Amino acid sequence: MHTVASLGAASSDLGNAAARPAATRVAIAGATGFTGQELLRILARHPSTTVTVATSSGAARPGAARTLPALAKLWDGPITPLDEAKIDALPREADVVFLALPDKAAAELAPQLVQRGLRVVDLSGAFRLRNDAARARWYPDTHGLPSGLAYGLTEHERAAVRSARLVANPGCYPTAALLALLPLKEAGVLVAGADVIVDAKSGVSGAGKAPSERTHFSEAHGSVSAYGVFGHRHGAEIEEGLGGQVTFTPHLVPLDRGILSTTYVRVPPGTTEEQLADIYQRTYGAAAFVRLTGASMPEIKHVAHTNFCDIGWRVDPSGRAILVSVIDNLLKGASGQAVQNMNVMLGLDERLGLL
Amino acid sequence: MHTVASLGAASSDLGNAAARPAATRVAIAGATGFTGQELLRILARHPSTTVTVATSSGAARPGAARTLPALAKLWDGPITPLDEAKIDALPREADVVFLALPDKAAAELAPQLVQRGLRVVDLSGAFRLRNDAARARWYPDTHGLPSGLAYGLTEHERAAVRSARLVANPGCYPTAALLALLPLKEAGVLVAGADVIVDAKSGVSGAGKAPSERTHFSEAHGSVSAYGVFGHRHGAEIEEGLGGQVTFTPHLVPLDRGILSTTYVRVPPGTTEEQLADIYQRTYGAAAFVRLTGASMPEIKHVAHTNFCDIGWRVDPSGRAILVSVIDNLLKGASGQAVQNMNVMLGLDERLGLL
Amino acid sequence: MHTVASLGAASSDLGNAAARPAATRVAIAGATGFTGQELLRILARHPSTTVTVATSSGAARPGAARTLPALAKLWDGPITPLDEAKIDALPREADVVFLALPDKAAAELAPQLVQRGLRVVDLSGAFRLRNDAARARWYPDTHGLPSGLAYGLTEHERAAVRSARLVANPGCYPTAALLALLPLKEAGVLVAGADVIVDAKSGVSGAGKAPSERTHFSEAHGSVSAYGVFGHRHGAEIEEGLGGQVTFTPHLVPLDRGILSTTYVRVPPGTTEEQLADIYQRTYGAAAFVRLTGASMPEIKHVAHTNFCDIGWRVDPSGRAILVSVIDNLLKGASGQAVQNMNVMLGLDERLGLL
Amino acid sequence: MHTVASLGAASSDLGNAAARPAATRVAIAGATGFTGQELLRILARHPSTTVTVATSSGAARPGAARTLPALAKLWDGPITPLDEAKIDALPREADVVFLALPDKAAAELAPQLVQRGLRVVDLSGAFRLRNDAARARWYPDTHGLPSGLAYGLTEHERAAVRSARLVANPGCYPTAALLALLPLKEAGVLVAGADVIVDAKSGVSGAGKAPSERTHFSEAHGSVSAYGVFGHRHGAEIEEGLGGQVTFTPHLVPLDRGILSTTYVRVPPGTTEEQLADIYQRTYGAAAFVRLTGASMPEIKHVAHTNFCDIGWRVDPSGRAILVSVIDNLLKGASGQAVQNMNVMLGLDERLGLL
Repeated sequence: MHTVASLGAASSDLGNAAARPAATRVAIAGATGFTGQELLRILARHPSTTVTVATSSGAARPGAARTLPALAKLWDGPITPLDEAKIDALPREADVVFLALPDKAAAELAPQLVQRGLRVVDLSGAFRLRNDAARARWYPDTHGLPSGLAYGLTEHERAAVRSARLVANPGCYPTAALLALLPLKEAGVLVAGADVIVDAKSGVSGAGKAPSERTHFSEAHGSVSAYGVFGHRHGAEIEEGLGGQVTFTPHLVPLDRGILSTTYVRVPPGTTEEQLADIYQRTYGAAAFVRLTGASMPEIKHVAHTNFCDIGWRVDPSGRAILVSVIDNLLKGASGQAVQNMNVMLGLDERLGLL
Repeated sequence: MHTVASLGAASSDLGNAAARPAATRVAIAGATGFTGQELLRILARHPSTTVTVATSSGAARPGAARTLPALAKLWDGPITPLDEAKIDALPREADVVFLALPDKAAAELAPQLVQRGLRVVDLSGAFRLRNDAARARWYPDTHGLPSGLAYGLTEHERAAVRSARLVANPGCYPTAALLALLPLKEAGVLVAGADVIVDAKSGVSGAGKAPSERTHFSEAHGSVSAYGVFGHRHGAEIEEGLGGQVTFTPHLVPLDRGILSTTYVRVPPGTTEEQLADIYQRTYGAAAFVRLTGASMPEIKHVAHTNFCDIGWRVDPSGRAILVSVIDNLLKGASGQAVQNMNVMLGLDERLGLL
Repeated sequence: MHTVASLGAASSDLGNAAARPAATRVAIAGATGFTGQELLRILARHPSTTVTVATSSGAARPGAARTLPALAKLWDGPITPLDEAKIDALPREADVVFLALPDKAAAELAPQLVQRGLRVVDLSGAFRLRNDAARARWYPDTHGLPSGLAYGLTEHERAAVRSARLVANPGCYPTAALLALLPLKEAGVLVAGADVIVDAKSGVSGAGKAPSERTHFSEAHGSVSAYGVFGHRHGAEIEEGLGGQVTFTPHLVPLDRGILSTTYVRVPPGTTEEQLADIYQRTYGAAAFVRLTGASMPEIKHVAHTNFCDIGWRVDPSGRAILVSVIDNLLKGASGQAVQNMNVMLGLDERLGLL
Repeated sequence: MHTVASLGAASSDLGNAAARPAATRVAIAGATGFTGQELLRILARHPSTTVTVATSSGAARPGAARTLPALAKLWDGPITPLDEAKIDALPREADVVFLALPDKAAAELAPQLVQRGLRVVDLSGAFRLRNDAARARWYPDTHGLPSGLAYGLTEHERAAVRSARLVANPGCYPTAALLALLPLKEAGVLVAGADVIVDAKSGVSGAGKAPSERTHFSEAHGSVSAYGVFGHRHGAEIEEGLGGQVTFTPHLVPLDRGILSTTYVRVPPGTTEEQLADIYQRTYGAAAFVRLTGASMPEIKHVAHTNFCDIGWRVDPSGRAILVSVIDNLLKGASGQAVQNMNVMLGLDERLGLL
């Protein structure tokens, strides 16, 4: 009944550090962007990790909390530049490295780090696409895929992640869309050849921390807009994950965190909502971070600031099906799933640090 | 170049009331809801109308501004109950009546008023559906359609509105969806039998003024949710307007005013965006309140607090087309279009009071 | 009863341009910022003006609507750079010039334009402070005050504005604070020497159009912050207007448009709310754009997208008084008041274009 | 450096429940309101507690997650009515009871529960005021104060809370205001007799879960309003905590969670910001949940969804001081501080379940 009470139970013997196994040392490259800050916040409180390195493109800063006030009394290590010396030192200072960097920087750095024996979770798009042509189009700076690579849609790639050296953490939109689509695809209930339409609504934090006209409060507040129509790289990622054409249209909505993805598919006429419920239940019944709402539509509010993905669905007798999935784009859509993947890689309880 | 400068030009001779034609007397039934207040605000400033009657279901109130502070120094007539005596008096006190009432009340009242010689613009759903079966399902309180009825999607029904006695003002979602769809339908470029999917995002004012869990700030802020999936009466209205099946999914997004409608259709492969531009330009080039943004996607921000509908579109070579249209749900989606219809009925410039 | 119906009445004889007086030609320097766009929007629909010039610091653009989609079908003249040639041409092309420019540019340009016979309404801060020391501190680029200068707090400076050649349009915060404070000051009910505290809450559009960390949606949404504590130049403007020390603290709140100013003053013990009501009523009873709400506190919502200032107040028996005033910072706090001042300068009805 | 890493450290031995001390059994009365849901969420994940009882005024519901979807996979016990039988059973089923009930219900229930040997944390206002006259005015349903009562402003009442049987959890506004004011008061730097003005801005969740006109999204969005001027009971609580008159004005701002409190006081002329820093540092340097930002003003964003209170301050040479404090009204202002108080009562690490 009380599903999570045991998770942090033993932590009541505070200070009994001697008795516990050595913490995993983690480095965060790109610690001051939105996803980097989330990683810092999660990993500073994670019972099995110690953040030993945090880098940023700016000048060195002795205490993170001075420039990142949200971290005060949570983590106050130094923020350092990610120069050659720091890269060389990483294998001595960390066991796992999180890359919250631009695609190009990640494309160059990740293989080096893997080669030096580090486990890497990459939050960029550099290694998400396995199809060479698609990758050449959307991530031209990525030259080849290192061995030991896994696509980190945790619930569907757990075994691959467990043995991976490099995890390509999925994009936020693909996470929401594929968690809803893949069980139906794998169960064979998606009508072949029928259109798959993913109409997604995202909060503004998905656009990143750099100020721009698009992210100006006065532009986004009180407005909704479609963007990247027929040309968003997350569309390619969803198509690769699903194995077929997808019409993907992202929209910006006036909230900070969260994605709601409305997916239109065709199932055989007569398929019932109960049948879909069975499929989803089989896939996610035991999953810590996927919750099923059935015909009651999920809402962003219930997953914001959590690592959950909530999924609901409706079907009509003619076989039209509408799947609605929601996540926090910075957590299940980025830093939360990244830590979930680290937990899996390290053989830890998947939920650590994330509930 | 200066397209609207002449509209209010002669009003600089203030006070020269003797020289101008007698103002049309308008009554607003249901003046304290969201759409009723918008009607009051528009018609109080309209150069050709005088608001002579405003009713509400509550007790009589001597000055509107006391309970509707937004109206202070704009209109301060009495708000009266809409009882039998008042209904009887309407033909003497008003030339045009706007009904911003629940469906059932409008279904009963509109035919009476038409019979007594009044022009009526009905903002409820009571007379929007001509198909008897659909109307019986969604508006069971409506018994038959009076003669002289027009569907008030102004840009497509101008002639019918001009000679109408009763205008059924369209729903907010159908206004946004049909303004985008109808030109393509009429031009014959929609592939027969292909799915038409309307994924719409609406501000919370669309849910009306009555407080509820759904409209609580803490529920709607920072959230997005789908509702009425496969069961929203505006879907029936869009289907009737388009003449075919439509998958319609409305969503609540955290803003007050505005709808963005993303419509997915199929056009013949090879159809170009320029061809769609030609079609839209032919239909709306001269329309005062429809603006075309082409491949640059329209945003709610540009139409909020206006009577405009902005429409953009994209097509891919395989014939997938995405149409995006935006309106202010309380203006072009309700009270603005209602006044636009009144202007047409009265033979006035369509833009009066609305720019 | 129907206070505004007559305002635009005669405009029903559309097209009768020959019969009306020649429109005033206006130029807008800085037409693409937030206040510039508002000026364009207002003046394009103003019955007595024609916008003949609109400038911006960027490259020349043939049609405004292409870069300012909100203006489509309202105004589509060219946006031109404000170079020497354009400045030279202004006296031939315009009767009134609105300056929506940075302080320094306005400080240089305004005196030149006045000298060439143009009427100027300056929305910058360059000419708001008459005290030389204060001006030297806050607006060091302003060298001297031209003759014919008026401070454009319209309701309190109507006579000066009427005969002015250059109107310094007040800051947004001072407009809200002084409209509440001045009647009490002038009536002699403010206790001398007692603290005056102005705690103001502003929407983000007040920070201007340039993207910055502060104006990033993800920073402002879901947050409130104080800024400029003991160091905001609008504090100096309020102090000059009031003639005494004021503690002024502006806050950023997560909305786009609007200021609510809460002012704490001391009145003689025993002063009643009715006495304050009398004072305010005497001052503003006939004012078109100031509305009094008494003990019922005003809300930003009621003045957003309008040129109104609403004022409410409460007093306790010991003489503590709290004044609350609200405006739309872009309208009564900037472009709306600027047009109101132009109306007064030109001898027009103050309300033209603003209701 | 890594201040919190050890907190949950031992929890990596998941499932080793046998080895850990028996969990404290907690009951939540009023589990479906905003603060009740927060309590459930926190206590379900708290390493030392088990939620054994959750009540609500509605009908019994077998699984909480069905009606509170945000709790799915976190807690799914039954929600039961709080009838006589349940009250009788509480001493057998729980060690600590949290009351998230209306004032009147809490006033009656708390003394009974204390008498039966339960520890009680009361989130209502029933027992916050010790002054009989003030309590009679603001909480007339409270008849006398039970022994063993402590006021739960944790950082200032730790010893009293530790030995208490009943903790009156402070109001949200008093928490923010008093955490900023008390250190200065206790250090003797507040000028006696000078006005203390607390201008507070709160998110809408502070108004509670019941839908009303005030909490309607369309009323609160895009608006700011003052309320309860000279008549909010939290003003009495701040006055009692501070021991002197306070002018307290709460405002509603358009965000969900968070309070920013701007406090205006007088300190002796010449007092420096460094002197205030020393005072605050002495008081809160070791406090887990109070962070000092100095002259850099704190923002709601940094404390939302946390139990932190951030405090900043500015002083001018004449002795005007402005203190700004921010909290999450549902956490440090309600449920978070309630759990913090429980931790202190139980002799646990204050931070458990709250980081």
